[in-house]
Amino acid sequence: MTKPTRRAARLSLGVTELTRFTSEALRVAGARRSDADVTADVLVSADLGGVESHGVARLRRYVEGLRHGDIDRNTKPEIVRDSGTVCVVDAHNGLGQPALCTAVDLAADRAKSHGTSVVVVRRSNHMGIAGWFAERAARMGVFALVTTNAVPQVAPTGTREAMFGTNPVSYAVPTSEGMISFDAATSVVSRGKLEQLGRLGQPMRLGWALDPHGRATSDISGTVDGLIDRSGHVLLPLGGDGQEHGGHKGSGIALLVELLCGPLAGARWSRHTYEGGEAGIGHFVFCVDLDALGDPEDLGKQLAQLGTEVRAGHPVEDGSSPRLPGDRRQRLTERRRVYGVPVLESVVNELKEIADLLGIRPPALLNQDYPR
Amino acid sequence: MTKPTRRAARLSLGVTELTRFTSEALRVAGARRSDADVTADVLVSADLGGVESHGVARLRRYVEGLRHGDIDRNTKPEIVRDSGTVCVVDAHNGLGQPALCTAVDLAADRAKSHGTSVVVVRRSNHMGIAGWFAERAARMGVFALVTTNAVPQVAPTGTREAMFGTNPVSYAVPTSEGMISFDAATSVVSRGKLEQLGRLGQPMRLGWALDPHGRATSDISGTVDGLIDRSGHVLLPLGGDGQEHGGHKGSGIALLVELLCGPLAGARWSRHTYEGGEAGIGHFVFCVDLDALGDPEDLGKQLAQLGTEVRAGHPVEDGSSPRLPGDRRQRLTERRRVYGVPVLESVVNELKEIADLLGIRPPALLNQDYPR
Repeated sequence: MTKPTRRAARLSLGVTELTRFTSEALRVAGARRSDADVTADVLVSADLGGVESHGVARLRRYVEGLRHGDIDRNTKPEIVRDSGTVCVVDAHNGLGQPALCTAVDLAADRAKSHGTSVVVVRRSNHMGIAGWFAERAARMGVFALVTTNAVPQVAPTGTREAMFGTNPVSYAVPTSEGMISFDAATSVVSRGKLEQLGRLGQPMRLGWALDPHGRATSDISGTVDGLIDRSGHVLLPLGGDGQEHGGHKGSGIALLVELLCGPLAGARWSRHTYEGGEAGIGHFVFCVDLDALGDPEDLGKQLAQLGTEVRAGHPVEDGSSPRLPGDRRQRLTERRRVYGVPVLESVVNELKEIADLLGIRPPALLNQDYPR
Repeated sequence: MTKPTRRAARLSLGVTELTRFTSEALRVAGARRSDADVTADVLVSADLGGVESHGVARLRRYVEGLRHGDIDRNTKPEIVRDSGTVCVVDAHNGLGQPALCTAVDLAADRAKSHGTSVVVVRRSNHMGIAGWFAERAARMGVFALVTTNAVPQVAPTGTREAMFGTNPVSYAVPTSEGMISFDAATSVVSRGKLEQLGRLGQPMRLGWALDPHGRATSDISGTVDGLIDRSGHVLLPLGGDGQEHGGHKGSGIALLVELLCGPLAGARWSRHTYEGGEAGIGHFVFCVDLDALGDPEDLGKQLAQLGTEVRAGHPVEDGSSPRLPGDRRQRLTERRRVYGVPVLESVVNELKEIADLLGIRPPALLNQDYPR
């Protein structure tokens, strides 16, 4: 079972070349150049940070969405409501990344001038990793929270019916020594994570998903297929099945994301997303300016100190070192910017197929072996 | 093991009498009348809603805190920073409930006039159930999120050291048919919940807490005592031990609360809370006005419809009915307003001891048996 992992880890792509290819593919598929560039940046940043489930392995879906017209090519996000501190952006069914990028820049800007802000996006599409957007806002000196709803795959506690998306929650805040940044689905695992484990030949655990009879399952491909076909498989909310380990809490947090990004954003929600070919999902951005809360230098130091103390905590195992959320992603990103992004052979083949389909040059592999 | 539960469930107190007693006890212990009233209301509402762990079973701690001077009696919350949409309130080490109540009213008011708002509270104390405050704001027509940090009891993933409080997250939003309301600790369970299970003679599960050696434990009284003594027992974040079932996600959500209510509020955080006898904890309130997001009537209908669809979801077991967060609390509250609050004999005895200590009339028990 380890063989595919090893062989795969020896293939790698340089960041510049991967970004060039991804942007070109999106452009040839119909996206405007600036939209293709930001979307490529978000996708490649997922691969850089070790979130391969949300990286270029998803490129085919974007390309197909643009070519088939499920995602509109000739549209721009529009501010349709603006009260100064609260804005509503209509993505007009364009790519999710440029729409959410517009929203985040607007939210950070309004928080800098008013203290705090909320920007919601409606009629949008999949937008990659929420963390990219929260971190973009945080670099402007604000605390930012970014969430999105998604295709229904998660069963609220008490039901065995998919009603919530994997509904990620992401936040980021600048500190005097960098940034604290978090990004995670509010389900125990995401479908993308299951697909990734499947590609690596690694197992899934009981307690992550239910089969159509409401029974715990450890069948990865059955679960992934069932989620895609909507044939009754469901993911469980953080905390797992029932209330015993807090599943009702995870379910309540997934509901929070669903109501912020759905009804409150004027977007589709729950089983009504993706009806009739259009996603219609929503995103939610909340920012607060550190300057409005106190001396930003002092706040930044306190935040950095909190991070330092958590990292210095008594580790669970001797020799291990506790981490903050975002630490692993940042370490991987630094390494991969230098050594390239390790990619599975199946992903390389898929990128070649996309290149053939679009008549563009496939991404050139790096000649070096990826360091262990 | 069921005997104490049964006997206990037959004792009950009327809401008016329980509120009268709680407020009087706080007043005689030194609290201002208005502060005693709001604090009593928050405590009794926990008992009404079935969150007995945060109800009058905690009264002794408040009374002792006021009498010993750990909580200041002659102080008022003060707005020390105000940018219109963002305010900072200093509780001056007074009771947490009146301070957070001030903050919530301010936040809802500012959201109504500006669109969205953030109010943080510093130098505060325990404030009961966060849900009471989120619901208070929601009744003013806003979506509200209310969180607080607390005494460190939860180990971040990767450490076995208590660094986060149980850090509840609460939100509430009005709908065309009432309210959606959620309130839960970001740990798998709270210490109050363990104490409650102990009183009822019910077991705790493996995966909720670790002993001082970092091993999973199911010893309730050992865990409760260890948490109080800070002798090395820790609660686990939502998602449990390690990363396998998403403990790192729960840990990241607990960190979110810690940084919002600690560093960003200018309050104490992590192991620095409760140093030298003063809690110094912080609260965080975020509101957004529904009017700023769209037609509030339409938003309210969409929210109600989301609730209706979740409740109508295919249930896990035949005959059960899926619930929204807050449904159980609301049902219990309606019932207990009529029939009284069932109380354990141990709690009744504790309230009598408090009455003796303060020289006031103990709460009179209802004559009726509590209906099964």
